[in-house]
Formats: sequence, C-alpha cells, structure tokens
Amino acid sequence: MRPSGRTPDQMRELRFEPGFTRHAEGACLVSFGDTRVLCTASIEEKVPPFLRGKGQGWVTAEYGMLPRATHTRGNREAAKGKQSGRTQEIQRLIGRSLRAVVDLKALGERQVIVDCDVIQADGGTRTASISGGWVALRIAVDKLLASKALAADPIRTQVAAVSCGIHQGNSVLDLDYDEDSTAGSDGNFVLTADGAIVEAQLTAEGETFDEEGLLRLLRLARIGCSEIFQAQLKATGR
Amino acid sequence: MRPSGRTPDQMRELRFEPGFTRHAEGACLVSFGDTRVLCTASIEEKVPPFLRGKGQGWVTAEYGMLPRATHTRGNREAAKGKQSGRTQEIQRLIGRSLRAVVDLKALGERQVIVDCDVIQADGGTRTASISGGWVALRIAVDKLLASKALAADPIRTQVAAVSCGIHQGNSVLDLDYDEDSTAGSDGNFVLTADGAIVEAQLTAEGETFDEEGLLRLLRLARIGCSEIFQAQLKATGR
Amino acid sequence: MRPSGRTPDQMRELRFEPGFTRHAEGACLVSFGDTRVLCTASIEEKVPPFLRGKGQGWVTAEYGMLPRATHTRGNREAAKGKQSGRTQEIQRLIGRSLRAVVDLKALGERQVIVDCDVIQADGGTRTASISGGWVALRIAVDKLLASKALAADPIRTQVAAVSCGIHQGNSVLDLDYDEDSTAGSDGNFVLTADGAIVEAQLTAEGETFDEEGLLRLLRLARIGCSEIFQAQLKATGR
Amino acid sequence: MRPSGRTPDQMRELRFEPGFTRHAEGACLVSFGDTRVLCTASIEEKVPPFLRGKGQGWVTAEYGMLPRATHTRGNREAAKGKQSGRTQEIQRLIGRSLRAVVDLKALGERQVIVDCDVIQADGGTRTASISGGWVALRIAVDKLLASKALAADPIRTQVAAVSCGIHQGNSVLDLDYDEDSTAGSDGNFVLTADGAIVEAQLTAEGETFDEEGLLRLLRLARIGCSEIFQAQLKATGR
Amino acid sequence: MRPSGRTPDQMRELRFEPGFTRHAEGACLVSFGDTRVLCTASIEEKVPPFLRGKGQGWVTAEYGMLPRATHTRGNREAAKGKQSGRTQEIQRLIGRSLRAVVDLKALGERQVIVDCDVIQADGGTRTASISGGWVALRIAVDKLLASKALAADPIRTQVAAVSCGIHQGNSVLDLDYDEDSTAGSDGNFVLTADGAIVEAQLTAEGETFDEEGLLRLLRLARIGCSEIFQAQLKATGR
Amino acid sequence: MRPSGRTPDQMRELRFEPGFTRHAEGACLVSFGDTRVLCTASIEEKVPPFLRGKGQGWVTAEYGMLPRATHTRGNREAAKGKQSGRTQEIQRLIGRSLRAVVDLKALGERQVIVDCDVIQADGGTRTASISGGWVALRIAVDKLLASKALAADPIRTQVAAVSCGIHQGNSVLDLDYDEDSTAGSDGNFVLTADGAIVEAQLTAEGETFDEEGLLRLLRLARIGCSEIFQAQLKATGR
Repeated sequence: MRPSGRTPDQMRELRFEPGFTRHAEGACLVSFGDTRVLCTASIEEKVPPFLRGKGQGWVTAEYGMLPRATHTRGNREAAKGKQSGRTQEIQRLIGRSLRAVVDLKALGERQVIVDCDVIQADGGTRTASISGGWVALRIAVDKLLASKALAADPIRTQVAAVSCGIHQGNSVLDLDYDEDSTAGSDGNFVLTADGAIVEAQLTAEGETFDEEGLLRLLRLARIGCSEIFQAQLKATGR
Repeated sequence: MRPSGRTPDQMRELRFEPGFTRHAEGACLVSFGDTRVLCTASIEEKVPPFLRGKGQGWVTAEYGMLPRATHTRGNREAAKGKQSGRTQEIQRLIGRSLRAVVDLKALGERQVIVDCDVIQADGGTRTASISGGWVALRIAVDKLLASKALAADPIRTQVAAVSCGIHQGNSVLDLDYDEDSTAGSDGNFVLTADGAIVEAQLTAEGETFDEEGLLRLLRLARIGCSEIFQAQLKATGR
Repeated sequence: MRPSGRTPDQMRELRFEPGFTRHAEGACLVSFGDTRVLCTASIEEKVPPFLRGKGQGWVTAEYGMLPRATHTRGNREAAKGKQSGRTQEIQRLIGRSLRAVVDLKALGERQVIVDCDVIQADGGTRTASISGGWVALRIAVDKLLASKALAADPIRTQVAAVSCGIHQGNSVLDLDYDEDSTAGSDGNFVLTADGAIVEAQLTAEGETFDEEGLLRLLRLARIGCSEIFQAQLKATGR
Repeated sequence: MRPSGRTPDQMRELRFEPGFTRHAEGACLVSFGDTRVLCTASIEEKVPPFLRGKGQGWVTAEYGMLPRATHTRGNREAAKGKQSGRTQEIQRLIGRSLRAVVDLKALGERQVIVDCDVIQADGGTRTASISGGWVALRIAVDKLLASKALAADPIRTQVAAVSCGIHQGNSVLDLDYDEDSTAGSDGNFVLTADGAIVEAQLTAEGETFDEEGLLRLLRLARIGCSEIFQAQLKATGR
Repeated sequence: MRPSGRTPDQMRELRFEPGFTRHAEGACLVSFGDTRVLCTASIEEKVPPFLRGKGQGWVTAEYGMLPRATHTRGNREAAKGKQSGRTQEIQRLIGRSLRAVVDLKALGERQVIVDCDVIQADGGTRTASISGGWVALRIAVDKLLASKALAADPIRTQVAAVSCGIHQGNSVLDLDYDEDSTAGSDGNFVLTADGAIVEAQLTAEGETFDEEGLLRLLRLARIGCSEIFQAQLKATGR
Repeated sequence: MRPSGRTPDQMRELRFEPGFTRHAEGACLVSFGDTRVLCTASIEEKVPPFLRGKGQGWVTAEYGMLPRATHTRGNREAAKGKQSGRTQEIQRLIGRSLRAVVDLKALGERQVIVDCDVIQADGGTRTASISGGWVALRIAVDKLLASKALAADPIRTQVAAVSCGIHQGNSVLDLDYDEDSTAGSDGNFVLTADGAIVEAQLTAEGETFDEEGLLRLLRLARIGCSEIFQAQLKATGR
C-alpha cells in the first residue's frame, strides 16, 4: 500500500492551468498532486552567441524553487550567489527534453526560454517541469503560428516525463515526497507521444536493480506519460 | 482620467488568498490588481548570529521576482549570481516595515523569514509585499499562539503599504505599471493601523514636489491603507 | 540638549575643499563635522549601453567606505566580493539626486561618474556625499564649459541633502553618529536650491511619527540645505 | 566500421597506473585510450557538517578538466569563478557511484574525497573517472586496513562505468570523442562487479530509442565493465 | 635629467601626517610627492583561525585604490566583485614586510590589520604603503604600550620601502608615474633600519639588467630608505 | 648537509617530457625532482581586447594546482570560486617572464596562453613552470614556423628560473619542500640564456640578508639556470 493510498500504476491528480500568468508568450501552472510548477515560455528574437548566423533557433530552460516551496525553508539561490548542482542538472535536463521534440531549424533564429519555478514541492518537480514546460512552449509557438511569424509548426510531437521507483519492494509510478525520500531506487523517464525514449535516468540508492526492474519501471512510465499526453492536449485545446 | 479608468483615490482590486501554499507556517497570495505576490512566513527556532543570547527574536524579509513576472523577461538573479540593488533595497524595506509592528522581545529567540516572490508584476510589488507579508506573518504567529509556543501576541498592530504619485498632473493612489512608468514623481508610504507613519519614501523623477504635494500623497495613502487594513483583517479571520 | 551641544536647528561645521585630489575632472573633500567624504567626478566620453545612440548623457554615482572610516573596522567590500545592500541603496540615491538637477540631453553623449568615498564616518555620510557630489560635478562640468566641449550649462540648479530626526523627543537637524544611533526615527531630505523636494526618506525606528512630525523635519531640512547651498556656491567660486 | 577500427563491443586500451602521484592516500592515472584522468583519494579524519555525530563516514568526488585537455582550450573554471553545470553533474555522479559500493557506517567518521582531474580528454571522461576513482579509493582504504585504522573492509564490491551509444545506426561500446560528437544517442552505465545497475543515464540526441535499444546498450555495458573489473583487480593487486 | 628635475638619488617630498583620521588605533597619511596613501592600523583582540591558541599575534595588510586615484578612472573592485591580482600581490607584500620587524609572540594573541588606501596615485603606492603602514602600526602599538596592554615593545626596528629603476639609461630613485611608465626595468626594495634587506623585487621590462645594475639600484634604495627612516621617527615623536 | 643529500649548488633531477599530452600546440611535463608541472601552450588567432588593432601579439600564463598535488589536500579553486592571491601572483610572474624573451610584434596578432598545472608539488613549482613553460612555448612557435604562419622566430632567447635560499645558514640551490618550509629566506631568479636578469624576488622570512648574501644566491641561480638551459635545448631538439 502506498502512503497516499494510490495503486502502483496510479498517477497523482494532474492539472494544467494554461494562462496562469499573463505576460509570457506561453504560461501554464502544472500540478502533479501537491507539486505545483509555474512554467512560462518567453520568446526572444535572437539566439545565444554560439548559434549566431547558423540559421537555427534554440530552446533552453531555467529552473528554480521558491525558498519555502519545501517542508523546511531552503536558502534562496539568488542570495547565496549561485545555483546548486541539482538546479543546474535539472534545468539542463528540461532543456534537452524540450529540444528533443523541436525542429530548431524550423523555429528560425529565435530563442524560447522556458522558466520552471516550483511554487510548491512534493516530489517530481523535474518531471512536472518538463510536462508543463511543453504546454507553455506549445502555447508560445501557437502564437507565433497565429501571427504568421512562423509558417510551419516546429514542434514535432509531445514530450512528457514521469518518475518511477521501487518503494518498499514495489515498483510504483509518480513518487510523491514521502515515497521519494524512502525509495530504494528511482528514475525519471522522458518519453515522446510517438513512443520513443528521450531520456532515462536511473539511480540506485541503497537498492540496486537489474534489467527486469529497469523494464518494469519503463512500463510504468509509459502508463503515466500516456495520461500526461492526454492532459497536455486538453490544456492546449487540441 | 487614469489609464485604468479608476478615480484618483481608487485602489485596484485587492485580494488576499491565505493558505495559497501549504508548507509554510504562514502563506498568502496577495493581489493588487494584476500584481500578484506569494508571501510566506517561515519560523526558525534560532536567531541570526548578531542576536544570539540577547533574549529577543527577529523578523526579516527576502524578495524575488520570477524572471517572466514582467512584460519582458528579466535575467534570473540566481543565474547572474547576485541580487540587484533594487532587490536588496526592497527586501530591506519589507523587513523594516514588518519589524516596526512586532515586539521582538515578546517573539522570543526565534526568527521569522518572510519571503515575497512576485508571480506577476504590474506596479506596486513592494507595497503588495509588505501588505501581504503582514498577513503571512499574522498567520504564522497565530500558529505559535495556538500551539502555546507563545503566550502573548508579539504583533502590536497591522502594517500596510501603498504607492501614490503624480500622474499627468494629478495625485493618484496605487499606481499600476502604466502609470508608474510615466509618473512625474511617486512615493511609497508604510502606515500602521493606528495611524502612524512607519516609512515614507518619495522620489521626484522629472517633476519635483513641495509640502503641499507631499501631504496630498500622504492623504491618499491613508485612504488606500485603510482599505488594505480591512482586507487583511478579513483574510486572517479577525 | 544635544550630545554635541548644538541647538536643534544647528548644522555641524560644514567644509568643502575643492581640488583635494588632482586627477579627477572635479574633486572635493566635504566635511559635515567629523564626517568626511572624498567626492570625485570623472567624465567619460561614452554612455552606458542602455543609452547608446539616444542623444543624451548620464550621471551615476558609486559609494564606498574605507574599512576603518568607522569606530570599529568593517570588512572591505572588495575583499568580501560584494557591495552590501546599504552601499547599493546609498549609491542609487546619490545618482538619482544628482540627475534630478541635470539636463541629460544638454550634457551630450557622455557620462559623469561621481565617486563618494568615506574617509571618516560620524553620521550623515549619504547626505554629505550628495552635497559634496554636486560640488565635484559642478567643477567637472565647468571644465567642459571652459573647454567649449559644452556650449550650455546642463546643471539646472543646486542640490543638497541633510538628515533630520527625532532624538530624545526633539526634532533635530544633521544628526551625528551619537544621535543617529539612538534616534527614534530619522529621515533624509534632498532639496534643490529653488525649493523643490527631490527625495524624502523617513524611517521610524521604535518611534513612529505623523504629518505634524514629518513637516517639522522638512522645515529643519530647509534650514540645513540653505546653509549647504551657500557653502557650495562659495566652494565653486560663484 | 568505427572511426578507430574497433569492433562494436571493443573497449579502447585500458590502463590503470596506481601510484602515479605520491602524496595522496590513493592515486591512479586511468586511461581509456587517449582519455587520461588522474584520480586521487584523500582521507580526512572528519565528516562534512551534515553528518557530524551520526556515526558514519562519507565519500565524495570532485571533477575538473585541465584547460587544454581538450581539442580547443576551455576557460579555466577557477578563473571564471564557478564550476559549470556539466562539471557539477559529473562530480555528483562520481560521488553517488562510489558511495553505492561503500558501507558508510563501516568507514567510520571520516571522509574520502576522490579528485578526478582530466589530463587529456577523448570522450568518456566521467566513466574513466568512476572506474579509476574506485582504484584510488581501494588503495586508500587498503592503507587504512593495513594501519589497523579500520578493522573491516567498508568496500562491498567493485564499481565501474562505461559509455555506450548508437553511432551511424550501430550500438557501440566506449565511445571516443569522434563517435561521441556524432552519436545519435548515448548513455552511461554504472555497474557493480556483482551484476547490479547503480546508475543508467541515457540521452537521445537526434535519434530517440526504445526498450530494445536500451537493452542492447546495457548488454554492451556489461561486456565493457567486465573488462574494467579485471583491470581494476590487477591494478590493486588482488 | 629626470622629468621632475630631481637628481638620480633624490626622493620626492616625503610627508607623514599622523592622526589624519581619528577612529583607528593608528593612522597616518603618507605622501611620496603626489602619491598619497591613508594608512590605518586596527587592533583586534583575536587572531585569525589558523593561529588560534598558538600564543602569538598576527599583522596583516589590505590595500585598495580609490577609483579616481589614477589618471583615468579604474573600476571599483567592490563593484567588480573581486580584488585584482595586482591588489593581492601588493597587500601580501605589505603584510610580509611589516611582519618582518614584529615579534609576533611578543604581540600577544591579537591581530593588527593595516589598511592602505590610495587617495592619489603617482607611482610608488606600494612603497609608500609599507613606509606609512609602519607609522600607523607604530602609533597603534604605542597605545597598547601606554595602556599597559603590552609590557614590552614587539616592534624590533623600522621598515621602509622605496622603488628604484632604470630610466633612460640612468639608475634613479623613487620613480614617479612618468618615470615608472617608461622605465626599462625597476624594482622595489624593503629595508630595515638596521641595514637588512627584507624584500627585493626586480622586474625587467624591455631592458634586462645584471649584477652591477642590481647593486646600483640597491645602493639607491639605501639612500632613500635612510631618509624615510628619519621622517618616520619624526612623525612618531621618537 | 641538505635533507636530500645534495651539495649546495646541486639541482634536483631535471626532466622535460615534450608531447606529454597531444591536443595543445606545445606541451611538456617538467620535473624538478618530485615537483611535476604540466605546461601547455595554446595558440589563439586573436589578441585580448586591450591589444586589438595594435599590430602585436601577446603571451600570457595561467597557473593551477591539482587539489592533492600537495601533502595535505587543498581546496579546489574552481569550487571556492576564486583564485588565491598566491595563484595570481605566480601566473603573473610566469607571463612576465615568458614575454621578456618574446618579440611581441614579430609574433603577430595572436595570443599564446601557457597553462601550468601542478600535478605534484615538492617546492619550486613556479620556477619549474617558467622553465617548462618556455619549452611548451618553443614547441608551439616551432609549429607556427613550420607551417609558415610565422616567417621569423619571435623568441629571442631562452628563459629559465630557479629558486635559491638560505637553509640552516647555507646558501643552497633549487629548494625542495623540506628546505623551503624551513628556509630563513629565499628567492626566485628568472634569467635568460644570454646572461641577463629578468626577475629577482627575494624574501626574508625570519632571517634578513645583505648584498653579499644576495650575490651569493644570484651566483647559485646562474649555475642552476645554466643546467636548465641545456635540458631545454635537448628537449626541443636544438
């Protein structure tokens, strides 16, 4: 039995609230249960220096957590003067995941910056960020299409992410904080709507695992992402 | 006529949403029209080094703005590696304002950190932060009272803040971004519910002003704060 | 009775020593009693990036304190690797105050950087900096006029600043360190020679105040600034 | 055909040179072909603050690259004033991987810091670091055992890592720089000598992959790690 | 002929103004011609961590330059967020030079921090700092002796420094900025009043030199330091 | 008798291993006994901003020490976020020393960055860096000459460096760590193959010295450098 009473392959309640803030070209508040992340997509009509004049665009991501998004207050990274290794690791993952489904040449010489700021944390903030980041990106790109700034859609397919792990000997989907902090090992899978694996990251903490276990987690991830893909479509009016 | 159609002494729609997030001892999403700030109060059972063993507590504040809270995206301070002068100025003001209504000895040897994070900005983020920060602080202290951790209430009265300025020759209350960016001069007043001035900061940009003007702005501020005090009471169930 | 034996509306001994150092286009050592600040104005024939090509100039200020300007040695900001919030707040105030009396278009595409370095501190370093900064700026601009680099004077009027506060129940002018550290509340006023208020910043520490009190402090400030304006004229040979 | 002429499941030439430097408690220069990493293990008789008094030890890792380890010179991180996200990601991975095979309680209240400095880079620096880091750790712990500072061996088993990827449609083992920079997707596997998976990180760049592909890469990783385990034993005289 | 009209072995006008500021335990404004450095000595009744409990004191130095001490304005190190290599090199030299004449055990468990801040620069700021730093240190230690905090004098002898160099083929003493910026090679000598060499640093820029030249510069340095020693004695009333 | 059994004018075993790494235009592992420094020379076809368009090149150096190059582990400068004063002092010395023998105009508008990374430290890392840095520079420039990128050799002569000091009353050459840490005073001499002094830095720690002593150390340095010059020629095939 999971602490939350969920079945092993049951996601937490999923919610995408597009338009949660109004200035960004795309914005979405995503909730995986009590984990809530504000994702915004900002379009800039220039590319970073390393891409100048290469005839392509860029998608990047930044991640942050409000100091009291967590059970006990964490120090503000802006006050400490640097982003932690964890923060950098997560924002690099979000950026790679979103770029995996975007045709950067078709995007043209512009950059989309996806900011994922965790308002409340209860496990799975990086997977919620990727899933909600796609919605923000989709909305922003739709505006470019609507305004004819773009002729063809550069987004090839949907991307979503979910965590899986082994909790008290059972493989479970979408770990919340209670499960995450006691899981023997866990992983994050980033999948596309057409069935491909974009990223898979598994870490054994205490309990190692084998092929069998890896495949079991991947199968759970497919179940979870399939649900996320549905919700993403609904949130973006498709 | 103001861009928003408001009368000179009319506040924007005020909203306090206590409990917007669940981990902090006190939390409140405050809205002054389209300006929305998440305020949380975190209680730590220790004081900063300069107060150790002095038999008193401390209240401090930190301020941040999500990168895309604004019309055009600002750089993330955590990524730049430092807080701007503006950020530091604002968080010092919030801290001083809240301390002005707290009996630090009565608080005991503990610290309350009030985090004010701007989710969406449309002018007046510092005044919304102070006003909402008080609500978060009030809720957190109420928990200390309820749990008997505190015997007597260390909060002496309410504190609220509002901006006033001269826009197209008229003195107006609670400037939004459109007014703020074109105001000849403006100021922020921090007042207590018992009528005292805690802070007054006036800056002439382009248009200087005189005693007369200063008093006119102060009178507007009294009108605005009086409305905020009402809303604060309602939000904290008093 | 004030600790220094001064009457409530009496300034400390004022001194402006123009030309205290020789490399800067304008230089002045200003003393408000034992508070001594070296102000230099440096002219650079280019503007900061955000003003390039806009046909106007800029005036900005930087503030610093020698480590042993104070009673007990403070850490060197260069060694700590960052300027404190207090330093940034002060240098922003000095810059705004000086810009308030300069026609930036008439200045042309050049920047004047006013450095205010506190050699010795005894209260009122920011007001001495503004008052002495104006002298340094005046001298530097006079050189531009003398060399015909400028045809018309971009400085519209004088600007000066002084602190006022409530000390042991009395409103007093130009607080020294002894008064400042025990004042119930105090404020800084930045005024122009033609009578306008440029900045007013009042902070209640312990004792709050009301309109009456605010106006009393403002009246004291007018007395003090009037004396400073005289001394500035004399120092710049006008 | 691979650029290097290797067969798909062929590792580059492996070399472990224990004792390459003499001050560290454990030291080893590891070569995976032209990739050469100096790994040192330093024992400190105290633990980091978060573990004080908890009756256990710690193993952590730091990673760096000499500026000209690469084809074109990279900026020195010490001169830039911060470690890149990539550096932090890698050193966190090395630390987790080594901790996975150490009984931290059995290690006692001491810390082992494993420094992995890349002398020359040709792909796979993180996998060489983990594999060579284990040798440095093994040597250092052997000294603790020899000196009776430790009664029982806290290292449970060997750990090694290798990269695999899809290069021109083929799954290949131990990618060098030429392959790595053009690989459709690749991954790093960290395995223990008793067959368990400690970490698996797969990233699709351009080409996504499926279960089939994931398992193929894992099988290659088992072949590579098995060869590394042999070489580790030889290098540590077991 | 030297640009200043001085003879090769002629110092610039030397001036020591003890008590230039009043808060520090020792203070002195030293002038070597137009080079003016404010030196203060601050006594702290504790030692840096690496000396705790070792029964000895410490003398250290910090060096800074006001932004407009120079012909063209330099960036403020506090604003840049770090001290330059040149600054660190100089402050390390000042500290070593002063420690060379202090019996650290006799000083007791206290630290003297000598701050050398350049008000105006015209060549030789580091040699003026050492020479004036000794005066500030002497004054501060005299206060410790006068107050009986110290029973015996920990300062063994005087220390002074001067620059020498080869300018247009001639060996000259105490280079000013004009000479320094065109000198073929130059050096700084730190000598004690009893004739010993504490530091010698020679750098060939363009023109290298030989033993002969080195000794010629050293003989000039002896002439200069002898004059400084006289002035130091007078300034400290000995 | 020296701890190592060497005679006073005996160098440690000298070794230059050109081509120790393969990516840099010039590379050399230099050993002065147990002190081992990897020197690489990287050629960049552009100059630093302050030299743009001036028709000349630049040679600069960076210095680092692996954390466990020393007896006890030092903190990684990249992790601390800044280079120490010692590091900066050394890299400035290396850069000046190499530039002293290069005709920067003849080098053309390109920069050579010489990185000196200490793999193992046993005293004399800066002198080994200069001596080995010249070899790396020589190899890199030889490639420019071979490829006809340069028509004439910009390197005028060889440069080498060695330390000397007074150990237990005796003047000795090329101090190792044991001697260095107990030396009464020591110095570093940078000499050219044609007999000139480029830099001389002498520091008295405890024991001061006089002309006599200075000349004795210089004579030892000539003996040591002469041996280094031979080894440099052999290493670069001249």
